[in-house]
Amino acid sequence: MNDFSRVLAEFASGEITPSARTCEIIRLSLVDWVACGLAGVTEPVAKITRDMVLAEGGAGESILFGRGVAPARAAALVNGATSHALDFDDTHFLHIGHPSVVIFPACLALSQQINASGADFLDAAALGFETSARIGAWLGRSHYETGFHQTATAGSFGATLACARLLGLSAEQTQHALGLCATRASGLKSQFGTMGKPYNAGIAASNAVEVALLASHGFISRPDGLECVQGFGDTHAGAGDMAALNGLGEIWVTDAVSHKFHACCHGTHAALEALKIAAANLPTDQITSIIIHTNPRWARVCNIETPQTGLEAKFSYKMTTAMALLGRNTGCADQFEDKFCKQDNARKLANSVTVVFDEGIPETAARITLIHRGGENAASFDLAEPLPLDVIEDRLTDKIASLIGEGKARDLIHTTARLSSDKNVHAFAALLD
Amino acid sequence: MNDFSRVLAEFASGEITPSARTCEIIRLSLVDWVACGLAGVTEPVAKITRDMVLAEGGAGESILFGRGVAPARAAALVNGATSHALDFDDTHFLHIGHPSVVIFPACLALSQQINASGADFLDAAALGFETSARIGAWLGRSHYETGFHQTATAGSFGATLACARLLGLSAEQTQHALGLCATRASGLKSQFGTMGKPYNAGIAASNAVEVALLASHGFISRPDGLECVQGFGDTHAGAGDMAALNGLGEIWVTDAVSHKFHACCHGTHAALEALKIAAANLPTDQITSIIIHTNPRWARVCNIETPQTGLEAKFSYKMTTAMALLGRNTGCADQFEDKFCKQDNARKLANSVTVVFDEGIPETAARITLIHRGGENAASFDLAEPLPLDVIEDRLTDKIASLIGEGKARDLIHTTARLSSDKNVHAFAALLD
Repeated sequence: MNDFSRVLAEFASGEITPSARTCEIIRLSLVDWVACGLAGVTEPVAKITRDMVLAEGGAGESILFGRGVAPARAAALVNGATSHALDFDDTHFLHIGHPSVVIFPACLALSQQINASGADFLDAAALGFETSARIGAWLGRSHYETGFHQTATAGSFGATLACARLLGLSAEQTQHALGLCATRASGLKSQFGTMGKPYNAGIAASNAVEVALLASHGFISRPDGLECVQGFGDTHAGAGDMAALNGLGEIWVTDAVSHKFHACCHGTHAALEALKIAAANLPTDQITSIIIHTNPRWARVCNIETPQTGLEAKFSYKMTTAMALLGRNTGCADQFEDKFCKQDNARKLANSVTVVFDEGIPETAARITLIHRGGENAASFDLAEPLPLDVIEDRLTDKIASLIGEGKARDLIHTTARLSSDKNVHAFAALLD
Repeated sequence: MNDFSRVLAEFASGEITPSARTCEIIRLSLVDWVACGLAGVTEPVAKITRDMVLAEGGAGESILFGRGVAPARAAALVNGATSHALDFDDTHFLHIGHPSVVIFPACLALSQQINASGADFLDAAALGFETSARIGAWLGRSHYETGFHQTATAGSFGATLACARLLGLSAEQTQHALGLCATRASGLKSQFGTMGKPYNAGIAASNAVEVALLASHGFISRPDGLECVQGFGDTHAGAGDMAALNGLGEIWVTDAVSHKFHACCHGTHAALEALKIAAANLPTDQITSIIIHTNPRWARVCNIETPQTGLEAKFSYKMTTAMALLGRNTGCADQFEDKFCKQDNARKLANSVTVVFDEGIPETAARITLIHRGGENAASFDLAEPLPLDVIEDRLTDKIASLIGEGKARDLIHTTARLSSDKNVHAFAALLD
């Protein structure tokens, strides 16, 4: 027995002061999320969930990515699944999950229903990001390794707290909402590689809206449903690490959110970043060989030796390295072409890459050594190290322009920038359409 | 790796021939379910979920217990929670759960949406009962004892198969529906004693409608999401006992569904049944003492020594025994009155009861010894032993009359009896209103 839920509920229902960086991260993640969602609207998972919800109809409270409106619970489902369809959204390594695709769909759908202000929406989202990362840390690696998809499980609890805040629930009501989420939350990693993965994000967002609404109307659950005997933690291999709450409200772990700048497997990203540093000002024709040191975790994830297709290239250290060195934009999904994998210069460069798996390298990091006619260049990169805000902003600006076009990207950035002073979120939400 | 999902999906999408008793059990459970649902409409859990769903509006496909209509997914949620609110619905001891409150809400809501015939609805319900019990057995006691609420978990898979059948899904599509359910299903026993318990039934029913609809539109998941590595069984302490499928389609385990005839804790039911046999034709004033032998599992569940309230009496071997011997109808919720617990004759009888916990008695059974002026009467009863159909019918007729009144009960029995030849389920579903 401990006070985990009570501490979270009191935090969620009290005054919060996100750090300046957290506020900026939320704005940047929001821009990134909308772009990922808009780019995902033609994916089958998006279309199927959207069509189901549109056939149901109902109160047109909340705008869906793609087209149409739906009640908040349903919109959260569709927008969560749609925005995670491309798997190009942000990551938090403490959470072990993707915060945007659960927190934003839930908060935005509910904010439209209750006419929340832009500032309240952003405030709730910051709370959701922060608590989902910390609840993810509380559940811990044991939870993840047992097979649970933390994006969906920890994410749903964080989104529940955010929705509870939007609805102005008391700490006690918030605990009941968390308790309901404890019996509602789900999501398995064994769905990876299927539409079930983005669906997990949608169900987490939808569950959060539902349990917060129910609690706001007096629904009674276990107020300690997360940490009680046979509660969510107990039954879902949770580590129950109370250190996860250290500094809550003072230190904003949200500051460490990482954004995806490459349209390929996350396991290749640190190597691509290190490569960019090591290869700066070095003509590619000077390079004779490349050595990548990376964590063994990725050996069976993204080390396809001789990819034949663009899709396989996304899971290949060798081919993504060749792409980057030949000036292809790895941030652009359509640059991963089958024909590129068959080009002589691409194959030759790919073959000059040696991948070394090294337990000493963190999972989020990589080290690159470029051997060239003039000697050696080496560089390391760790995705867990927060980037300066201006670097994130510049790179996200490029990314979203490539995802949704420059005009729409400009609109998105502009509308998001003024959201904190908007009386409601409707003008912002209209961007999803 | 095994073929668990494939076998279930092929069964669900092929020809099935429920036993004659299964068909009768489904009819009787259906009557019981409607009565429990109608009696539950004023419970807070029913009201709160219904109000949420009515506020959403949408396609008025499916009738809600109490009032109003909603899309099928939403109606399944409300009707599952409403019908389990009183915890007076049927049980299957192999399933370790309550089949009616998940299978019927899902099947009836979807049948209204797609205009299914009465026969198709009943057929799908039989399939849902049968497979939820067998999936419950496959998950096993380890799953239950870890803290999962099998009513909701196994129930959701069975309801998914039933909905897949209603939608005419192929075996392959049905496997994808099961796979989606694997990442969607949830429900914890730690919610017992709160509104979370009936809510679990509602979410299980609603999830089933959702995943079957998604699969019918081409949603792709893990076709082996139940049994794969880190699938539902693996991650939820499932025993994975393949013997659970023995005789599938030939032996209908549904035949062993047990109905609740007493409005008190299930742990007291076997003792009340044994008492009825032992005390037949024996004047209560002749009885000097009563000995109840029961399984130790119930020691901390329903053995309140000196209950002060009607609610406490429901969890008291002694007081329920006194009620039955004094001619109070234990099948009637309003007979559990605070004032009864304070009557001298009730207290005196209650004090003459000795409860003996005995590992040799199955959890579903009890043995009663009545010591009276003329000697001793003894009787045993095991809820797991199927009752003759005419006995179930007679006792359910009494039960539902006491729940919803004789007129409405007659209507319900009559309308249900002709459902198998109805072109659609609309006349039947109108009973819920």
